Amino acid sequence: MSACNEFEWIRSLSSNVKNELKLGIGDDAAVFQGSSPWCISTDSLVENSHFLPEDSPEVIAQKLVRVNLSDMAAMGCQPKFFLLNLHMNASWSKAKLEAFKSGLLSELKQWNVELIGGDTVSAKSGPLHLVGTILGQPFHQNPITRSGAKVGDLIYVTGALGGSFPKRHLQFTPRLEWSEMLCLHAYPNAMMDISDGLLQDLGHILDQSQVAARLNLDDVPIHDDLTEHPEALSKALSDGEDFELLFTLPPERAQQIPPQVNAHPIGVITEGQGEIFARESKSEPYRAWPRLGFEHNTNSPPIS
Amino acid sequence: MSACNEFEWIRSLSSNVKNELKLGIGDDAAVFQGSSPWCISTDSLVENSHFLPEDSPEVIAQKLVRVNLSDMAAMGCQPKFFLLNLHMNASWSKAKLEAFKSGLLSELKQWNVELIGGDTVSAKSGPLHLVGTILGQPFHQNPITRSGAKVGDLIYVTGALGGSFPKRHLQFTPRLEWSEMLCLHAYPNAMMDISDGLLQDLGHILDQSQVAARLNLDDVPIHDDLTEHPEALSKALSDGEDFELLFTLPPERAQQIPPQVNAHPIGVITEGQGEIFARESKSEPYRAWPRLGFEHNTNSPPIS
Repeated sequence: MSACNEFEWIRSLSSNVKNELKLGIGDDAAVFQGSSPWCISTDSLVENSHFLPEDSPEVIAQKLVRVNLSDMAAMGCQPKFFLLNLHMNASWSKAKLEAFKSGLLSELKQWNVELIGGDTVSAKSGPLHLVGTILGQPFHQNPITRSGAKVGDLIYVTGALGGSFPKRHLQFTPRLEWSEMLCLHAYPNAMMDISDGLLQDLGHILDQSQVAARLNLDDVPIHDDLTEHPEALSKALSDGEDFELLFTLPPERAQQIPPQVNAHPIGVITEGQGEIFARESKSEPYRAWPRLGFEHNTNSPPIS
Repeated sequence: MSACNEFEWIRSLSSNVKNELKLGIGDDAAVFQGSSPWCISTDSLVENSHFLPEDSPEVIAQKLVRVNLSDMAAMGCQPKFFLLNLHMNASWSKAKLEAFKSGLLSELKQWNVELIGGDTVSAKSGPLHLVGTILGQPFHQNPITRSGAKVGDLIYVTGALGGSFPKRHLQFTPRLEWSEMLCLHAYPNAMMDISDGLLQDLGHILDQSQVAARLNLDDVPIHDDLTEHPEALSKALSDGEDFELLFTLPPERAQQIPPQVNAHPIGVITEGQGEIFARESKSEPYRAWPRLGFEHNTNSPPIS
C-alpha cells in the first residue's frame, strides 16, 4: 500500500476508534481507557497577548484547537479528546459566544476530536482567557520525544519558516498528516513543533538528547511572507509560532520520508552538549551560532 | 484485614504506582499509560470570583488542587497527575509567585499527585486566572458516575453541610479517604461531590439515573458554622462548595460503609423522573420540593 493510500485508510478508520471514550461531558469527570500510551498537553490563550479583541471568535477557537493539535503532531500522536476552559468577560456578547462555540465544534469535528469536558467561569473584568487541553495516542507504537536525537541523524524542518505574525499564526495548518506519515514510514528519532523559533526549539532537542548540531542555513526554507524582508533568514531562524515540524532521523531512513511531507534537510546531529554550529553558505566554515528565539514554551508550568 | 488497615496498606503502596507516568514536564506533552480507566477533570479559578486578592497564595494553590481532588473523590478515583495553567498578571510579585509554587507543590505532594505539565502566560491587565486539570484512576474497578442510582437505594451525604462561604470553601478537606473506603467496601451505585448545593446536585444524580428521591430533611447534617443562622436548614440544602460526598447504595450494603466514613442517610431513591419529595419532620407527609442551589457546575464547557 502506498504511503498515501495507507494514510487515507487509517484516517478512514479513525471515526471508529472513539471507543476509548467511556464517559463524556456531564459528570464530575470524563472517563477514557486504552492500552497504548496517552499524551496530554495544554495551551493557554489570552486576549491582547495571543489574539486581539477584533479577531473573529471562530478564528480564536480555531487557534485554540490548532496550537493543541500541533503539540500532538509534535509527539507523533493522533489527537482524540479536548477540554475547554472558557473564562468569559462582559465584553463578549451572546452572539460572539455562539460564534466561538460553533467555530470550536466545527474545528474539532474537522480533526475528528471529541470535546469531553471543561469549565466555564466569568471574570468581572479584564481580558478573555482560554485554555485548551488535548489528549492523544501515538500514530505508531510510542510518542516521539525531544530526547531521542542520535549522533549522525539528519535534521529536517517541514514547510517554510518565519513571518508568522501578524496573521499566519492564527490560521496555520497543524502538521498532523505529515506527522502521521513520518511516524508510519520514516520513524523519526526526535520530533517537536516549532513554536519559539527554529534555533531555540532545536536547542531543546539538543539539550534533551545531549548532542550538538551543524546547520546549513542556506537550506532553511524561508516563508514567502518574508520575500521582501531585509532580514528574512534571521526571522526564519528565530520567529515564533511557525508550528512546523522539526525532526531528526538517521540517513538510512531519509528515503522513507513520504514525498507528500514537505521536509527539508537543514543539518546533522553531532557529538556535543547542546551547541549549534552553522554556516550561511556551503563555502564557509561552520561557526558557533547563538540560539536566538521567541520565548520559552514547553508543556510546563513555571515549576519543576 | 479491617477497612482501616486495608486503606493504610493501599495508601502505603501509592508511592509505587507512579510507573504509569512515562514522561513528565519538559516535552511537547506528558505521556502516561495504564490499562484501567482514566478520569480527567478540570476546574478554573479567577481572582475576585473564586478567591480574593488578599487570600494567601498558598491557600489559593491549595484550593486549586483541592477542587480538582474533590472531583476525583466524586468519581471514586485515586488522583495521579496534575496540570497547571497559570495566567499571571502584573499585580503578582515574584514573592507571591514563589509562595504559590511552593504551596502548590507541597499540596500535590501531600496527596501523592505528580505535576506533569501546564502552561504559563501573562496578561497585560485584569485578574489572575488559574486552571487545574487532574487525572486519576478508580480505587476499585470502575469510576462511580452520577447515573448509577437505583430505585430503593439509600441516599447518603458525608460530613456536614452549609455555610462554606466565606472561609471554609478555601480550606476544605477533599473526601478522598472516604471515597476510597466506600469504593473498596460499600460499592456506591452513584456518587458525586456537593459543589452547587445538596438539592441541586442530588437533582443531577436523579436526572442522570432517571429516578426520583424522598428526603428526610431532619436527617440532613447541618454544619456547626450555621448554628446561629436563622435559616440553617435552607442553607445546608442549597449552599455551594461544601465538597462533601453525595452517594447512593442499596440497603443491603449499608452495613458495609466503614465506620470511619462520616456518612448520614438522608432519604431513598424512588421511581420517577428527577422529582424531589421531602419532609421537614417524620410526622409530616412528603411534598414536592424545589431544587434550590448555587449554580450549575459539571465537568462541562458551555457546549454539548
